[in-house]
Amino acid sequence: MRRIFLSAITLAFALALGSAATAADALPSWKDGKAKQAIVQFVKEVTTKGSPNLVRPAERIAVFDNDGTLWAEQPMYFQLAFALDRVKELAPQHPDWKDKDPFKSVLAGDMAGAAAGGEKGFLELVGATHGGMTSDEFDEAVKDWLATSKHPRFKRPYTDLVYRPMLELLAYLRANGFKTHIVSGGGVEFMRAFAEKVYGVPPEQVVGSSIKTKYEVRDGKPVIARMPEIDFIDDKAGKPVGIHKFIGRRPIMAFGNSDGDFEMLEWTTSGPGPRFGLIVHHDDAVREWAYDRESHIGRLKRGLDEARQRGWVIVSMQRDWKQVFPFEK
Amino acid sequence: MRRIFLSAITLAFALALGSAATAADALPSWKDGKAKQAIVQFVKEVTTKGSPNLVRPAERIAVFDNDGTLWAEQPMYFQLAFALDRVKELAPQHPDWKDKDPFKSVLAGDMAGAAAGGEKGFLELVGATHGGMTSDEFDEAVKDWLATSKHPRFKRPYTDLVYRPMLELLAYLRANGFKTHIVSGGGVEFMRAFAEKVYGVPPEQVVGSSIKTKYEVRDGKPVIARMPEIDFIDDKAGKPVGIHKFIGRRPIMAFGNSDGDFEMLEWTTSGPGPRFGLIVHHDDAVREWAYDRESHIGRLKRGLDEARQRGWVIVSMQRDWKQVFPFEK
Repeated sequence: MRRIFLSAITLAFALALGSAATAADALPSWKDGKAKQAIVQFVKEVTTKGSPNLVRPAERIAVFDNDGTLWAEQPMYFQLAFALDRVKELAPQHPDWKDKDPFKSVLAGDMAGAAAGGEKGFLELVGATHGGMTSDEFDEAVKDWLATSKHPRFKRPYTDLVYRPMLELLAYLRANGFKTHIVSGGGVEFMRAFAEKVYGVPPEQVVGSSIKTKYEVRDGKPVIARMPEIDFIDDKAGKPVGIHKFIGRRPIMAFGNSDGDFEMLEWTTSGPGPRFGLIVHHDDAVREWAYDRESHIGRLKRGLDEARQRGWVIVSMQRDWKQVFPFEK
Repeated sequence: MRRIFLSAITLAFALALGSAATAADALPSWKDGKAKQAIVQFVKEVTTKGSPNLVRPAERIAVFDNDGTLWAEQPMYFQLAFALDRVKELAPQHPDWKDKDPFKSVLAGDMAGAAAGGEKGFLELVGATHGGMTSDEFDEAVKDWLATSKHPRFKRPYTDLVYRPMLELLAYLRANGFKTHIVSGGGVEFMRAFAEKVYGVPPEQVVGSSIKTKYEVRDGKPVIARMPEIDFIDDKAGKPVGIHKFIGRRPIMAFGNSDGDFEMLEWTTSGPGPRFGLIVHHDDAVREWAYDRESHIGRLKRGLDEARQRGWVIVSMQRDWKQVFPFEK
């Protein structure tokens, strides 16, 4: 995590110092092509004094999906890997899990069975295994897991699997007066445990799915207790609802990678004035993964079919990105 | 509204330009006394380089209740006045309201009866009368009402009844690297309609009670539809829950005026490191109102009883504020 943290800071610094730097310098991992040109052109349009499309800084809201957009999501959502590890850790205290799905599949190592319920089933698993602890304890558990576990393919901490071009983009937008928000189907408390260090996005700018919490004073000490119950699912049509609820203003830029982001892009790009929508297309099996229409994770079908007519930019990981992960030489 | 808007902007400017200005200049409506000293002393401690209590800017979160803390709340919550006006406006379309409380009381002009349900009953009224419109339409309705209606005692727009010392305080904290958030029992969409102009607090920094919303595409046009159902009540123990959910980080300063803010102050001030809690005490019947332990609006009992032992500052409107409203000469 430290490595990524430093690279994000370095980028931010480079941008802050080089106020006269060209946009090209700010996005070095992006190949010069249509996608990069579209981003730079849009940012110029909404930030240049005298531009007919100038947008005041308070309205420069950009929203980013997390899984598959800012970091990888294969072979399973990273938060699912965390949940599975927790199930194994907690199983001795729950003998009934041996006969009860999704726990049964998890304990039997049947990952496909465990993942079959999709993001919603995944959240149920999270709710059931993470209730009964305080938010501070949960935060610690996530940080511990991120510090000690490794991604199965790359044998590196999960937080190393962030996309360098997207880190550059986050920093570039912030340097141009944008507020960058994460709007993800993932758990909000899971993401908040690393979003500030890894992406430079503070907790109050992270919107995500959540379980219910309760305020309690235990032996004179106030805590936020996590309940084993889903509060909100920030996916699909839930994304515009989450944006409205937490941000309260329609973004002018939206970045996603799957059909779970469709409504977020639709809501963002159908407002008045200049609007920008972008989809990261996973088409690089060598450096990352290649999947879209048929994938059970990060399925992208409607987005591919309608991007052109809606004016959304499709980014090819293979052709538009010089580098995918920061650790590539 | 424009007048207040300009005065907030002027304050912000004065602070931004006068970076060498003393704190005393930044809070001209505060008398030199214990309350002002405590605020200035705390801000110095957490912002001065080399101070053992220095807090990095990202952690400088200050939360403010709205009703009774940033603007007045008598003779009834201003949002309740808005809701009552809406009931009268919508009544011809709802003949059954004549026999059904709280609508019956409202239409009969029985304000005590209408207010008897407290903040929760009030939110039910809001839910029932405000469902079935889009969020954009609601935003317009609030703005129209604020622009055209007058407070019964002062015969001025409701947004004129903000507290000048608190506007100064908001600007002073922001000038010192704080992020200022509103955390109120009031409706989040109601407050967002004016919070940016009046307080300089953008929508994404407003936390409040909410009704459920739904994303829909109507004739190809996406909308956020408001449902006639309460989603979240941001009051009492709901305030730390709201802070945790929306901000995701424990504030270091909290400002309230009633026992509805007790848990917010408790949660804020029981964290590690430097912490600050403040209660505005309404004890000025001449310039504003005087009420506390027995009031059905803004009841303050436990806060008065426990402030000293908890180290919270009590502000006397009468003795600590030179001026209450910006319109006073």
